[in-house]
Amino acid sequence: MFLYLIEHVNRMTANLNPCLSVDCVVFGFDGNELKVLLINRDPSTGCEQSGKLKLPGDLIIRSEMLTIAAQRILSEFTGLHDIYLKQFGIFDDPQRLNSRNDLEWLENRSDLKIERVVTVAYYSLVKIDKSVQTDLSIAYNACWYSCSSIPLLIFDHNNIIDKGLDALRRELLTEPLCFELLPEKFTLNQLQRLYETILGCELDNRNFRKKIQRLPYIVPLYERQNGVNHKPAQLHVFDNNKYASLKKDHTVFIL
Amino acid sequence: MFLYLIEHVNRMTANLNPCLSVDCVVFGFDGNELKVLLINRDPSTGCEQSGKLKLPGDLIIRSEMLTIAAQRILSEFTGLHDIYLKQFGIFDDPQRLNSRNDLEWLENRSDLKIERVVTVAYYSLVKIDKSVQTDLSIAYNACWYSCSSIPLLIFDHNNIIDKGLDALRRELLTEPLCFELLPEKFTLNQLQRLYETILGCELDNRNFRKKIQRLPYIVPLYERQNGVNHKPAQLHVFDNNKYASLKKDHTVFIL
Repeated sequence: MFLYLIEHVNRMTANLNPCLSVDCVVFGFDGNELKVLLINRDPSTGCEQSGKLKLPGDLIIRSEMLTIAAQRILSEFTGLHDIYLKQFGIFDDPQRLNSRNDLEWLENRSDLKIERVVTVAYYSLVKIDKSVQTDLSIAYNACWYSCSSIPLLIFDHNNIIDKGLDALRRELLTEPLCFELLPEKFTLNQLQRLYETILGCELDNRNFRKKIQRLPYIVPLYERQNGVNHKPAQLHVFDNNKYASLKKDHTVFIL
Repeated sequence: MFLYLIEHVNRMTANLNPCLSVDCVVFGFDGNELKVLLINRDPSTGCEQSGKLKLPGDLIIRSEMLTIAAQRILSEFTGLHDIYLKQFGIFDDPQRLNSRNDLEWLENRSDLKIERVVTVAYYSLVKIDKSVQTDLSIAYNACWYSCSSIPLLIFDHNNIIDKGLDALRRELLTEPLCFELLPEKFTLNQLQRLYETILGCELDNRNFRKKIQRLPYIVPLYERQNGVNHKPAQLHVFDNNKYASLKKDHTVFIL
């Protein structure tokens, strides 16, 4: 896998845009914590806290559209595809590549004289289940880090994650993003825990349930959780068609 | 003025970023129509429909932040400063500079070999009054065109205006942007006309007034219009402090 990756990257370098990159903040929820996916800038090295950790990202190819670049980069560096992807910001501080060590790495990797790179940032949303976790760590040396304890990353990637989290918080209030992070069938407890984790606050249990029960696109099933230690809770699904038809009438407020 | 501009531009060209530009969609409201400010790509020529009309925009300087570039470009090409400015999109179609004639002009103007330029777009909001109108047309050869009849512009600038209008429509529903376009003291008719013009629909007169009267940050004055042919209407002001304190509690909906 890594040899393939390195060869692939070598084929690409002649063709990279020296001014523009894309970086992806991949958010995942494991039922308890909101996490971010990090890789090592040297893909053959693991993602322990090495001082070389970064977001999946790269210079774009000269003739490439930004969203296509984001999809390609996610797929190349993490194997993830067909996931929610949203452009949320442009990072244009002329000093953002100031670390000499990081800049040298980028110049070696790209075989380009780099003067200034403006990066366009996307966030992605992923349900963390066991299969995703195994694929990412074995095939791509990528690791999930809790949003509350991100190590020091290269360039301005810590700042990009902060701004991505701000954007996710804002958009969570008006878009049904949380269902991208939850399993297909979820309990109201899981939904509440997800909102609380992302918004960074505690929500009143009774009020939350009352509000959710008024939303016709969160549909209770005649089905309960399996294999849990506590009393199994009722499962729900998100009905995207109902949501879309309500959204047309501008009557949707998630919380 | 033009000589100064051309000299200034010459001083800059050695230092331009060949990959990144900024374009500004300046919206103005004259009490009746929503308009966009256009300039000629040759600043010494007027802005009659010459096939060379464009948005105020330029390549950024190599070390420049995008928002600083937008402010500089607006000031250089239109004399406007200290006005509302909002980044709303990135235009990255690799074919966007495809017109050979437009590309040659850009290469001559910048003295750079141009391969591909990604542009970051901003919209601005301006109250059109007589003094603004005179300054813009005399000192800068810039002209207002009604949003409903924009001529063919260079590059993808027609598309940028369309997307800017979409962004303005979206944000008008949640932000108090309309007050950037109205005179300080305005009538409810003017406010309604502005909403109707931007949203492209007719609003029910009675409902509109009822909704507005419930908003504590739109304050009626003991003062009426002057010098109008019809019965002078009551004037109102927008109270930004009241709005800001309400916004903190997340209780603001403009319409």
